Amino acid sequence: MAAPAYDVVGIGNAIVDVLARTEEALVQRQGLVKGTMALIDAARAETIYAAMPAGVEKSGGSVANTVAGVASLGGRGAFIGKVRDDELGAVFAHDLKSLGVRFDTKPATSGPPTARCLILVTPDAQRTMGTFLGACVDLGPEDIDESLVASAAVTYLEGYLFDPPRAMEAFRAAAAAAHRAGRKVALSLSDPFCVDRHRAEFRDLVDRHVDVLFANEHEICSLYETEHFEIAAEAVRGHCDIAVLTRSERGSDIVTQADLLHVAPWRVARVVDTTGAGDLYAAGFLYGLTHGRDLATCGKLGSLCAAEIIAHVGARPGTSLEHLAAGEGLI
Amino acid sequence: MAAPAYDVVGIGNAIVDVLARTEEALVQRQGLVKGTMALIDAARAETIYAAMPAGVEKSGGSVANTVAGVASLGGRGAFIGKVRDDELGAVFAHDLKSLGVRFDTKPATSGPPTARCLILVTPDAQRTMGTFLGACVDLGPEDIDESLVASAAVTYLEGYLFDPPRAMEAFRAAAAAAHRAGRKVALSLSDPFCVDRHRAEFRDLVDRHVDVLFANEHEICSLYETEHFEIAAEAVRGHCDIAVLTRSERGSDIVTQADLLHVAPWRVARVVDTTGAGDLYAAGFLYGLTHGRDLATCGKLGSLCAAEIIAHVGARPGTSLEHLAAGEGLI
Repeated sequence: MAAPAYDVVGIGNAIVDVLARTEEALVQRQGLVKGTMALIDAARAETIYAAMPAGVEKSGGSVANTVAGVASLGGRGAFIGKVRDDELGAVFAHDLKSLGVRFDTKPATSGPPTARCLILVTPDAQRTMGTFLGACVDLGPEDIDESLVASAAVTYLEGYLFDPPRAMEAFRAAAAAAHRAGRKVALSLSDPFCVDRHRAEFRDLVDRHVDVLFANEHEICSLYETEHFEIAAEAVRGHCDIAVLTRSERGSDIVTQADLLHVAPWRVARVVDTTGAGDLYAAGFLYGLTHGRDLATCGKLGSLCAAEIIAHVGARPGTSLEHLAAGEGLI
Repeated sequence: MAAPAYDVVGIGNAIVDVLARTEEALVQRQGLVKGTMALIDAARAETIYAAMPAGVEKSGGSVANTVAGVASLGGRGAFIGKVRDDELGAVFAHDLKSLGVRFDTKPATSGPPTARCLILVTPDAQRTMGTFLGACVDLGPEDIDESLVASAAVTYLEGYLFDPPRAMEAFRAAAAAAHRAGRKVALSLSDPFCVDRHRAEFRDLVDRHVDVLFANEHEICSLYETEHFEIAAEAVRGHCDIAVLTRSERGSDIVTQADLLHVAPWRVARVVDTTGAGDLYAAGFLYGLTHGRDLATCGKLGSLCAAEIIAHVGARPGTSLEHLAAGEGLI
């Protein structure tokens, strides 16, 4: 087996975030549930946007954020996802490529515009998201570059991609190609409601194709239909090699066949915006995993990267994670 | 004369900023001069953007920033400027309207896209700008709503608008309409190189049409072709009712026929990004002027708003300036 050319190839929704600080009342008036992601159509996106204060536009997308984090740590990343050939699509591509991430999925030349995620950041630093999937719905198995997948140590799949109609096929093609090449497949459950919408498919994918699973406590509880984290953490054991379960200020638990390893959260002076916390935890963890670190160090790297992202607005690193992690003696 | 319906109507370039933190070396490699604005064509914009790190997109435009600041102070603002009917144009319009600013200039339906300004923020917090004017070049006298201009206490013109070919005509139409209605006309010189490009027209406009002039020390020195601020400050006296001269950490000087009033700078814990400092100074000053404050208070309001904007990335207020100014006992 050849040495991998990439550490992580991510497959996910290609989204530009529109972030604004708002009061709680707006979240409720727009019928959104705080802390979660709702899929919205073009008309609802217009309505919510019109009600939002002025904000900033910044590249996002859950797994794209993770790949950006891996690159910021000094890792080698690639991304597969669908933009339209429009202005926000150009912004999305620029922001990945400027980090050295390979991104050459063909943009759609017709159909809906590049996806955007309207993110309402409330005074408690929670983020509530309305996603208009736009061009992401066009991602299909024809976009999976199997030689690229085969050249990456880990193929990382975004749970949110269960929503666009043809992405499941793309997932299966990618997972098969990765395993044929002797590589690992990782998955993020992304969102408890997303898990609700596609529970059977998620369980099947975890059982048959996933080596490393990322989930927060709400997501893993949703997957196994329990209200108790401990039950869910026990239920996932054995369905994949490693389940990484993040619990915000309670830190994270790493579940393997034989062990359960607790990782303390990294201290943050002031939490400003939790957008991207899970994405960047995954970045640190996957960087560690693909660089031969033990699971405890992988977890610490994840916690450090999550701490960096929640200390500012937006879900892409505001500084070099490589310098940050080196300063902490983690890489 | 009817009471004004608006405090400030701004006429300026309608631009979305693309802000990224960079090293000094990139500024030099791209042939830009630190601290200034260069006009760039579409091809050069592509080249510089490709070399830039990932950044954020945020509504900008010098006079549009000022009008946003007036609105954030609780004032009534309107804006005239040209976007294209594209995604960034929609972002620009949203961000003004969400502040309660009236903005109903018809977007261009063909021709170049909405303008963007590539802003390189160096470690010393200075900003260097490359502006692709895009749809702004289409602004003409037909876009000036003379009844809107007549209904505003101050019409505020952006010096950068001397660059697009037909904007001078729009300026003259607006200034004439404002004065016919017994209102004031204000002008920002915008940039020393912009003054160099159009010195004769600027002097003529100041002499014949401008009541309140805003300039930093480089701009006023360029207007009167001297290296000495004191000479320039003396030279401008009498050419307009009030000349407001900003000098970064040295504060500002307000020159009237009879007086020269010095205003101390507002203290800032850490200067992060100087983009928009002059724009927001003008916002505070014009809010004070249109609310009957004395010149010393107008200057303090300007300094406070400038201090808020340089403490974070981007040229639009990050907080309610009304609350901030009320907390300082200024409004």
